[in-house]
Amino acid sequence: MADAATIRLAFERYCGRLTAHDASGIAALYAVDAVVEDPAGSTPVVGRAAIEAFYDGALGRVRPEKVELTGPVRVLATGIAAAATLRSTSLRDGVRAQVDIIDVMTFAPDGLITSMQAYWGPDNLTVLDAY
Amino acid sequence: MADAATIRLAFERYCGRLTAHDASGIAALYAVDAVVEDPAGSTPVVGRAAIEAFYDGALGRVRPEKVELTGPVRVLATGIAAAATLRSTSLRDGVRAQVDIIDVMTFAPDGLITSMQAYWGPDNLTVLDAY
Repeated sequence: MADAATIRLAFERYCGRLTAHDASGIAALYAVDAVVEDPAGSTPVVGRAAIEAFYDGALGRVRPEKVELTGPVRVLATGIAAAATLRSTSLRDGVRAQVDIIDVMTFAPDGLITSMQAYWGPDNLTVLDAY
Repeated sequence: MADAATIRLAFERYCGRLTAHDASGIAALYAVDAVVEDPAGSTPVVGRAAIEAFYDGALGRVRPEKVELTGPVRVLATGIAAAATLRSTSLRDGVRAQVDIIDVMTFAPDGLITSMQAYWGPDNLTVLDAY
């Protein structure tokens, strides 16, 4: 099993690489056969290559200024899964907005992410200011 | 599908009934064939009667002083599932402690909870004060 420190680091790297718009770096956090659902329940994106393409597209559309953890990572004692709160702040068309998200991830024993499901909806989008 | 307001209300009632140590009231929030994993990945508790017994036992052990939402409920646009952050504060043997939890729930169209998975681990327990 992955230990709690390894899992917390994976979440921190995930946020940092989203902020850096580093799709290939994000994909490298995933196992080769990982599955991503963002939002949860949507058509799964399967495999590291497809996952990189997914993040490349999403980052190109959203262009986040910052993605950060907003609370403690909840790591199961078994080390097989964890959940955490993330906030993504973006500036598009002169409007700064944030989305509050909960990501649930499962982990391989080597610490690679084997699945991710993102929980968020329209009510979690907050417009911060407009210019 | 359940709408976002119905789902948020279910989370609020869930916290309120945990605070009130109301196991039967909690069970009534669940569909008759619902499945609970607390923590996620543990042996599932299946069906409303077993779920009531589970909460009755857990509340008897933990005796929470307060269970509250600590952030916005993340409701999927599809209304089939949601996730939220909860904090449970307890006083046992003269020690006040809190646990920070993320609960993921799925919902039937009538707003009853069809499944719950609780994400928390040893690192999410914080001792607040001891007398």
